[in-house]
Amino acid sequence: MRDLSADAFLRYLSLNTGTVRAQDDLLSIMEAAQRHGISVISPWRDQVAAVGLDRVVAAVRDGGFSLSGYCRGGLFPADAAHRAEVRDDNRRAVDEAAALGAPCLVMVVGGLPHLSRPGSAPSTDIALSRTQVADGIAELLDYARAADMPLALEPLHPMMAPERSCLCTLRQALDLCDAIDPERSGGLGIALDVYHVWWDFEVMPQIERMGADRMLAFHVCDWLVPTTSVLSGRGMMGDGIIEIRKLRGAVEALGFDGACEVEVLSDDWWARPLDEVLSVMVERYRTAC
Amino acid sequence: MRDLSADAFLRYLSLNTGTVRAQDDLLSIMEAAQRHGISVISPWRDQVAAVGLDRVVAAVRDGGFSLSGYCRGGLFPADAAHRAEVRDDNRRAVDEAAALGAPCLVMVVGGLPHLSRPGSAPSTDIALSRTQVADGIAELLDYARAADMPLALEPLHPMMAPERSCLCTLRQALDLCDAIDPERSGGLGIALDVYHVWWDFEVMPQIERMGADRMLAFHVCDWLVPTTSVLSGRGMMGDGIIEIRKLRGAVEALGFDGACEVEVLSDDWWARPLDEVLSVMVERYRTAC
Repeated sequence: MRDLSADAFLRYLSLNTGTVRAQDDLLSIMEAAQRHGISVISPWRDQVAAVGLDRVVAAVRDGGFSLSGYCRGGLFPADAAHRAEVRDDNRRAVDEAAALGAPCLVMVVGGLPHLSRPGSAPSTDIALSRTQVADGIAELLDYARAADMPLALEPLHPMMAPERSCLCTLRQALDLCDAIDPERSGGLGIALDVYHVWWDFEVMPQIERMGADRMLAFHVCDWLVPTTSVLSGRGMMGDGIIEIRKLRGAVEALGFDGACEVEVLSDDWWARPLDEVLSVMVERYRTAC
Repeated sequence: MRDLSADAFLRYLSLNTGTVRAQDDLLSIMEAAQRHGISVISPWRDQVAAVGLDRVVAAVRDGGFSLSGYCRGGLFPADAAHRAEVRDDNRRAVDEAAALGAPCLVMVVGGLPHLSRPGSAPSTDIALSRTQVADGIAELLDYARAADMPLALEPLHPMMAPERSCLCTLRQALDLCDAIDPERSGGLGIALDVYHVWWDFEVMPQIERMGADRMLAFHVCDWLVPTTSVLSGRGMMGDGIIEIRKLRGAVEALGFDGACEVEVLSDDWWARPLDEVLSVMVERYRTAC
């Protein structure tokens, strides 16, 4: 298991730029990251769109950055009137990820149609959402493979199921991988975020089941007690109760040696100065991951 | 499947008295329930203790009430210094449930020790909590069987794992039943609350696996969008996105014909007049369950 406190391992720290989305635009965030020795990022689509894809591509190249992922494709559940829009939107996400040189496109698959794709007719049929997700992933996978862009399915915490993701556990995500790609021919795997899976009694055996070939991205933050917001109440590593090191040990035991991506979506941290957040983040990466 | 809108089925409506815990004491809640034609309740231990067990036993008998459960035993994770206290506390819960004529003791098993049993040394070892829960249930089961009191394990929503329950899914709960009682000799089963399990892609096959013999209690409320409180943000049936009828249909298909227990733990509903809550509850029981 890697010793992240050593200077040599700072290069595996990735900043998910959603962590400081409230403080500044993406180009300024990238400049700040460089000040703190961070050369890996995982940007969000809306942050890229706000400054322009071409400018971000240039900033990545000129700044010597690499990506650990691109956030995000998905949000498949939709009514019939919105399905073409969903397909096109996801193909654009693949294209953007490829232009940025991302190693994978993170997939937040969506929950109920009217909550995932506003304007869709309301439905509480979550089983139907799961079917639409499976169909959507399978269809997008052909396009993504042609672009050589792996899709990283991210199971999200069950409390986010209505708005964000009817894909809630690692078992469910791996079942979906097996159904769509039974021969493990590649291009489809998992983005594993400790925040979403720490509670699951099956997470360790399911990590083993996953295998290195399907382990595409590893995200960290912490679970605060109490948690006061369902969507933006995450904690900085070390401030909560997740056994991050045990989970990292399990994925590294598979052979995973990719980035440790910090994604703290938090009203609290969004209200602090950018450099303060990055400074604490680097320190906690060394001591609490 | 029963048609709960018919008058004849009002007798299957159970009031979990936590739903109106803020409004009045248990004896007054029981009087109010009678005014609304409700003759089944599921009281909480602290509500019983506040007015005295003997008085509640008398009020149940004199008012012609029956119980659908007793809330609650459990909270097993604890440090060594608190383990005897946990054991004794759970045995008292069994005794109280028996005195009240409850058909089962609902078990909320606990999360991390310092959060479940304040005063215990802090720990983030959730795997250890699971072991302590398994040991605690197995030990209590002997005592509970001697008192002829079934233990109903309630898997709780994963967002409540740190404070309330490291038992988070129906699969996990049934695995635990199988481990402790492989011969299904009885006295151990499940309290299934739609709020905790609706998101789970496996809930339907796991209900089938459960079988009627392990189906001890059925709880309803609704999941609100957005959900603004992790512990007390539940909705009244019909106000949220849970497909209650599908889940009730699945448990009734097993042969379950027990009560439909309404447990709405909600800052919003706690702030409304007692009779208003009960009136809406009866109407929603008829139309949204």
